[in-house]
Amino acid sequence: VEPSSPNVRTEIPGPKSRQLLKELDRIQNTGAVQFFADYDKSYGNYLVDVDDNCMLDLYTQIASIPIGYNHQSLIDAVKNENNLSTFVNRPALGCYPPRDWITRLQTSLLAVAPPGLSEVQTMACGACSVEHAQKAMFIAFQRRKRGGAPPTQEELQSCKTNDLPGTPNLSVLSFKNAFHGRTMGALALTHTKPMHKLDFPQPKWPIATFPMLKYPLEDNVRENQAEEKRCLAEVEDLIETWKKKGEPIVGVVIEPIQGEGGDNFASPQFFQGLQDICIQNDICFNLDEVQTGCGVTGLFWAHEHFNLKQPPDIVTFSKKMLTGGFYYRSEYRSQEAFRIFNTWVGDPSKVVLLEAVIKVIKQDNLLNRVTEIGNYLWPEVEKIQKKYPDFLSRVRGLGITGAVDFPSLDDRNKAISSYYQKVYYNI
Amino acid sequence: VEPSSPNVRTEIPGPKSRQLLKELDRIQNTGAVQFFADYDKSYGNYLVDVDDNCMLDLYTQIASIPIGYNHQSLIDAVKNENNLSTFVNRPALGCYPPRDWITRLQTSLLAVAPPGLSEVQTMACGACSVEHAQKAMFIAFQRRKRGGAPPTQEELQSCKTNDLPGTPNLSVLSFKNAFHGRTMGALALTHTKPMHKLDFPQPKWPIATFPMLKYPLEDNVRENQAEEKRCLAEVEDLIETWKKKGEPIVGVVIEPIQGEGGDNFASPQFFQGLQDICIQNDICFNLDEVQTGCGVTGLFWAHEHFNLKQPPDIVTFSKKMLTGGFYYRSEYRSQEAFRIFNTWVGDPSKVVLLEAVIKVIKQDNLLNRVTEIGNYLWPEVEKIQKKYPDFLSRVRGLGITGAVDFPSLDDRNKAISSYYQKVYYNI
Ligand code: FES
Repeated sequence: VEPSSPNVRTEIPGPKSRQLLKELDRIQNTGAVQFFADYDKSYGNYLVDVDDNCMLDLYTQIASIPIGYNHQSLIDAVKNENNLSTFVNRPALGCYPPRDWITRLQTSLLAVAPPGLSEVQTMACGACSVEHAQKAMFIAFQRRKRGGAPPTQEELQSCKTNDLPGTPNLSVLSFKNAFHGRTMGALALTHTKPMHKLDFPQPKWPIATFPMLKYPLEDNVRENQAEEKRCLAEVEDLIETWKKKGEPIVGVVIEPIQGEGGDNFASPQFFQGLQDICIQNDICFNLDEVQTGCGVTGLFWAHEHFNLKQPPDIVTFSKKMLTGGFYYRSEYRSQEAFRIFNTWVGDPSKVVLLEAVIKVIKQDNLLNRVTEIGNYLWPEVEKIQKKYPDFLSRVRGLGITGAVDFPSLDDRNKAISSYYQKVYYNI
Repeated sequence: VEPSSPNVRTEIPGPKSRQLLKELDRIQNTGAVQFFADYDKSYGNYLVDVDDNCMLDLYTQIASIPIGYNHQSLIDAVKNENNLSTFVNRPALGCYPPRDWITRLQTSLLAVAPPGLSEVQTMACGACSVEHAQKAMFIAFQRRKRGGAPPTQEELQSCKTNDLPGTPNLSVLSFKNAFHGRTMGALALTHTKPMHKLDFPQPKWPIATFPMLKYPLEDNVRENQAEEKRCLAEVEDLIETWKKKGEPIVGVVIEPIQGEGGDNFASPQFFQGLQDICIQNDICFNLDEVQTGCGVTGLFWAHEHFNLKQPPDIVTFSKKMLTGGFYYRSEYRSQEAFRIFNTWVGDPSKVVLLEAVIKVIKQDNLLNRVTEIGNYLWPEVEKIQKKYPDFLSRVRGLGITGAVDFPSLDDRNKAISSYYQKVYYNI
């Protein structure tokens, strides 16, 4: 049976979820668990929990489900005998790629490569994608510095013990409220909730301000332009300061739309300006599209809205792409083996699923659908905001990604739980 | 058709692999690619390449294939309709675990938990397992330091910009020749080949010497004991030095058998001594079993050979376990939500496969088989070593993990390629 509308039968989490929570709590911390889901019963946009509550799912497993639950094309991909060995045998892709690997890449990742980019490195999640993109920047920066000379014996020896000169003092610039992942190098670029960061040693790298735009945009044009200009000037300052300090910035990492930090948007002009600064300073411009990629803005990659003068140097992806990885300009290809590497460097079984996802996105014209929905959705949310100006503010969105602010976290949580109750009590 | 013996028809890589290599090289660096594999035709211990060469596979995808290629029980697990939604819908496990998650954990990870450990956190690969195990150490250390008080406002604010006091100066001790992964925090503990490390900024943390034992062991008892004692004293020194320095060591991370760094063994007494030092100094004792776990030593976990007085504080795993993660003593459970967390925190579809793997290991009594093979194998390699003392040295092994040294990398590579040729030319 396919659920076709929300149907809440119990409080959430319901009694069955609460029982399972108690059991799971004997095995691990369960503080983040909202409820236990029944993925057999979930379908399309509807997530069903173990208490048989059926919810319209706007959260999609932290933005990682691309075409809904149990899509027939994904079921077919798993059931297809030709794919069987891909699900059974996970290879060390960097050493022994499967027979059909090139075709797979062509029908999946390369079929949706950002305009102008034709090289791609697979990875397994957002964090390792961001970390290895960083490595590509460090490698390219040091290669330029060496001017074609091979690394010295001293460099090769010293790097093994994290010492100079093989382990150089280099830095990566990120932005306030950014989120790029949770392993040390990715977390170093992350500046959102304290619970992600507290107590963990981190490299001290430069952090610039991400523009905080005023809404509605049409009433704040001049102020917002000034804000973005100020932020770009800050980036230029930091590049100078850190060069003088002896810990030069090798690249800038930024989300096209900040996700975890509050769905913060900046204008195409801001990103154009940022790219110009990177070009002028010969450093890497890395757009992290882990959250914004795979069509949620109505174009496959959010940065396609920016009308950039040349492709970004690196575009990182994961989540709805099911596999992690990054596209890159050939300057960022490593010349030696084993430098951008790990045991699995991704998982072909995820690429098989991505292949099916991309086919559906194209066949069903989903990018247009996203644009249509966005064009309908955000003006409607604006109307609601106008009705409740003390409660809602700063409505903003592009395609199906966006947000509206509540006065406090508490208010937001109350709103979410009252949605559930509204359906529960049928009011 | 099931291949049942090595059969080399072409040089390796053969013409088809070389053609594919050329094509893949347009998409990414292929320096590490040995050949393209045909995973449909590979079977059991035999890896078949696209040129129809069939090789006995001792490398098993960088030690990550637990029970051979296309094992029937894994095929059954993928084909089982009850598992379908697990392969199709990857959840955000930390927020919405599937209905059967607790049972799955019980029949897989918990069924083989190291003696005395009953809590487990899933992750996706070795690197994020090691990184999040580190976080568990940092959290526990700071919690003890706070003596039960909550973090201060200053800590919560400052950590967002990687500043003191929220981002404390803490360190983790690792060993020379160790390998723990390639994201920044895991790479900081890694001290093997320069190509893994060169050019990447890293925290400068303490590094102790891993014992370099002399072989044969029975002729070098006193010298090896002295070597291990010296290494333990070094650890104690470093703990003191780094405490004084204001960057205290919160934990020790060590492989039960160093893998990537050259299959280096130390005695059970060494590991007992190391654990004692950790207990005395109230810091974490983390055994990284990413490479040594899942039965390769004849016991499920290599550290079961060590006769430790209490379980290790943390045991990290990945590779042949198919899922990543770590077991931990309850002192290392985080008390707050979202601290040990990321989008997926693992992948239930890998746990489904692991469940099948563990069933096979138990049913087929594979741990005993590993012990039997080890007992046969290493004495035989010793005989060969005695025959070629200028060429082979330091034979060492436990179960099916172990090594013998060649005089140089070049000699080793020549030996491997001549094995291929021996079969090719049928000599
Ligand atoms: S760090 Fe990405 S899968 Fe482990």
